[in-house]
Amino acid sequence: MDFRLLFSTFQADPAHAKWSQQRQLHECLRRSIRDGTLTGGTRLPASRTLANELGMARNTALYAYEQLATEGFLVASRRGSVVASIVSLQTPATAPGAGLSLRSGLSRRARTLPALPNFDMPGAFAPGVPSLGDFPVTLWRRLLDRAWRSLKPAQLNYADPRGEHALRTAIADHLRVARGALTDSEQVFITDGTQNSLDLCARAFADAGDKVWLENPGYQGAVAAFGGAKLKPIGILVDAQGMAPTANDWLRHRPRLIYVTPSHQYPVGSVLSLERRLALIDHARRAGALIIEDDYDSEFRHEGPPLSCMQGLAADAPVIYLGTFSKTLFPALRIGFMVVPACLAPSLAQLLARTAPRGRQADQLALAEFIRSGQFSLHLRRMRRLYRQRRDALVAELEAQLCDVADVHGSTAGMHLALRLKDHALDDVRMSARLLDRGIAAPALSQHAVGLRTQPWRGFLLGYAQVPVDKMGSLVKQLAHVIRSEAAA
Amino acid sequence: MDFRLLFSTFQADPAHAKWSQQRQLHECLRRSIRDGTLTGGTRLPASRTLANELGMARNTALYAYEQLATEGFLVASRRGSVVASIVSLQTPATAPGAGLSLRSGLSRRARTLPALPNFDMPGAFAPGVPSLGDFPVTLWRRLLDRAWRSLKPAQLNYADPRGEHALRTAIADHLRVARGALTDSEQVFITDGTQNSLDLCARAFADAGDKVWLENPGYQGAVAAFGGAKLKPIGILVDAQGMAPTANDWLRHRPRLIYVTPSHQYPVGSVLSLERRLALIDHARRAGALIIEDDYDSEFRHEGPPLSCMQGLAADAPVIYLGTFSKTLFPALRIGFMVVPACLAPSLAQLLARTAPRGRQADQLALAEFIRSGQFSLHLRRMRRLYRQRRDALVAELEAQLCDVADVHGSTAGMHLALRLKDHALDDVRMSARLLDRGIAAPALSQHAVGLRTQPWRGFLLGYAQVPVDKMGSLVKQLAHVIRSEAAA
Repeated sequence: MDFRLLFSTFQADPAHAKWSQQRQLHECLRRSIRDGTLTGGTRLPASRTLANELGMARNTALYAYEQLATEGFLVASRRGSVVASIVSLQTPATAPGAGLSLRSGLSRRARTLPALPNFDMPGAFAPGVPSLGDFPVTLWRRLLDRAWRSLKPAQLNYADPRGEHALRTAIADHLRVARGALTDSEQVFITDGTQNSLDLCARAFADAGDKVWLENPGYQGAVAAFGGAKLKPIGILVDAQGMAPTANDWLRHRPRLIYVTPSHQYPVGSVLSLERRLALIDHARRAGALIIEDDYDSEFRHEGPPLSCMQGLAADAPVIYLGTFSKTLFPALRIGFMVVPACLAPSLAQLLARTAPRGRQADQLALAEFIRSGQFSLHLRRMRRLYRQRRDALVAELEAQLCDVADVHGSTAGMHLALRLKDHALDDVRMSARLLDRGIAAPALSQHAVGLRTQPWRGFLLGYAQVPVDKMGSLVKQLAHVIRSEAAA
Repeated sequence: MDFRLLFSTFQADPAHAKWSQQRQLHECLRRSIRDGTLTGGTRLPASRTLANELGMARNTALYAYEQLATEGFLVASRRGSVVASIVSLQTPATAPGAGLSLRSGLSRRARTLPALPNFDMPGAFAPGVPSLGDFPVTLWRRLLDRAWRSLKPAQLNYADPRGEHALRTAIADHLRVARGALTDSEQVFITDGTQNSLDLCARAFADAGDKVWLENPGYQGAVAAFGGAKLKPIGILVDAQGMAPTANDWLRHRPRLIYVTPSHQYPVGSVLSLERRLALIDHARRAGALIIEDDYDSEFRHEGPPLSCMQGLAADAPVIYLGTFSKTLFPALRIGFMVVPACLAPSLAQLLARTAPRGRQADQLALAEFIRSGQFSLHLRRMRRLYRQRRDALVAELEAQLCDVADVHGSTAGMHLALRLKDHALDDVRMSARLLDRGIAAPALSQHAVGLRTQPWRGFLLGYAQVPVDKMGSLVKQLAHVIRSEAAA
């Protein structure tokens, strides 16, 4: 066996160039044993001999031998290091991964999922991103450290799958006052965020093939979650009053789940009117359907009185209320919650205990304290003021520079508005791509179509929460330039 | 309208007894408006008048009116507070939740999920629980706080869906040295733990109806994850060498996924021999199947040399390697990882970007530093020593007190062993329940059957990682008592 040849051949592979000599030798020998080049029973030269032969330090060879021995490839015997007798594994001559090529890549269901808005979407106007620089990180760090100091060793174990009681109570209290919700802590379940909540709803409360209503245009994250659970999505058109199901929809597409964003429809920003809220609850109850009320952005109401959440409109409303702290605190927190009807809470608790190990007690306790101490409401008030200023500045610029070609929609609440193009023939997707080149992240409304039906909205989603007032003018100017040049073409 | 009667009737409901007077009045009026008792246009008495009538402070009535107004139920006019004209919502006379009764509770797929070992299972011998009191919490708090201080505001946003690069690099480096893995950081994906990893594998790499092989007896958490994704579970019997598929299994039950726990089979603790590892890879490659190698407990090898992980046995092994920090650090951390074949990494990254928002940058950076700084290896060494002592003590007690009725299996690695009853007629499930009454959490082996086939293991899972040496004697004594009295019966 010419080890010089064996080793130099191995080293010749550029893939191994960056490795340490020891790793090269170890891997070279291991591979030779695996592929049968070095057969069971073969005696290897003493480490010193091999080291001399290959011109390396003795320890390098010694360590390689030791690691091979601990892995079971070499047996130390009186005769020295001997190759263990193992089934040799013929590595096929094909390229790495060829073994998978047959069925490589993703499953069909994974390939058919729609794209989410890119989470690390850079640049101005990226929707759903709060003003991160304004979050009181120092205070948060203090609360976190206090929570960690308070933990008993047992609290390093798995946690209550429903979430920490202190946090569930704080959320229930907050929702009763701030959102008119009818709930106590027993109905509150902590999740890893809205995506996780949607996932749970889809799998806990619906079966493959069940119909789920979504707003059209609507939130693609919900489409992805329900699609992943093999539900049948039905797009219900949205107007200025929010989701507008027809009698025919109720008749021909009887839903199991109804996903709705009443406080600030995503993406177009309509607010679901009280009449429609009551009607939807009424119909859903008769149809035996569950409404999933994603109340995101409800904390930021810029005009008019806040409407009570749907969950609070009737003591037995068939509503699952979803909330998240991604927008009110920061996305990286990954904590959201669901409020389920009292009659469903016990069975959901059982399901979670069986499938969803929970932990992160310190994070949950810190958040509970953040809410209880009033810091949460304080932060909301500050952000409400800030976002409203930024919204006013953006709306003013849009009306000054673009009122002839586009209308502003859904600016009464939340962190984003919809800029709707008057000319529906314009290609908002292409414009969105051109804007991204300029560092402006303005998703196209036409990319938010849900279900088979198309939707009549053309334009852009503009998130203003993280855009300073003094930047609005120049950003809208670029926006206007792209729109007008597209219109001219 | 007699508000005294209306209010006293509402107050009479014990469900409202604990509420503040203001919340009682607010909810009473809101409900009356919703159910049409107070019709649109009705003028309410001035808050002072109502307060006198109901014998409460004026502010109580005032606040109730204000909240109803902000919710859109009352309109302030010259005539005073007037009920808004809304579709009245007839609350059915039936009990709360009746609206859901038709199809209340969980979906079929949710109801058919198997039970996981109870996460908050109390008491001695609970498997999978590390020695929580020995985790260096103070050090962890310091690393966490340092990570938080290092964060830029942008890092409060959504994170790289694959996980933080620093952590993925630290894990890849650790796995290459400690487990003989062939990976770089590009193949590593951070997850919320093994349950989340299994969920991802099932949905990303298999479609509904695909066959998945599981060890029998096996880990019920995997059964739940694959069941939730509608895969078809095939139980492959396990012997002292680990999973032992027959030629017939390969022929008649060609798998898409193969889930295996090679380092310490769950629950019986066998170590998959090198021959079987190589054979499994070889067969899987030919069958176009993906092996999911759950390498849990590999860090705690008490006897014999550690075997290299399967992922490292061949450059193009069709293996997805799963690891978790729940056992090596603490369960509440909720951080695990997967290592996928290089050829699958890009498509998985895309899928995650579309479906799984990630965050928790600080936690990830703290963990990366914990590993890089060598504290992780140090902690592993300390726990290895501790767990080995506890294992020795448990094994000694079991052999001293129970060798005539039961054999010890799978004690060469990990944090638990399997106590196998010689008399297969004994009801280990009933005994397990009796033990739990005494505060001993010893899951029955017969409850770990997978698929339709039964499995020949009767006995108990005994987790010793969190049981002090001096407690073993008395605990085994209770165990012996329960077994012998059951045998006598």
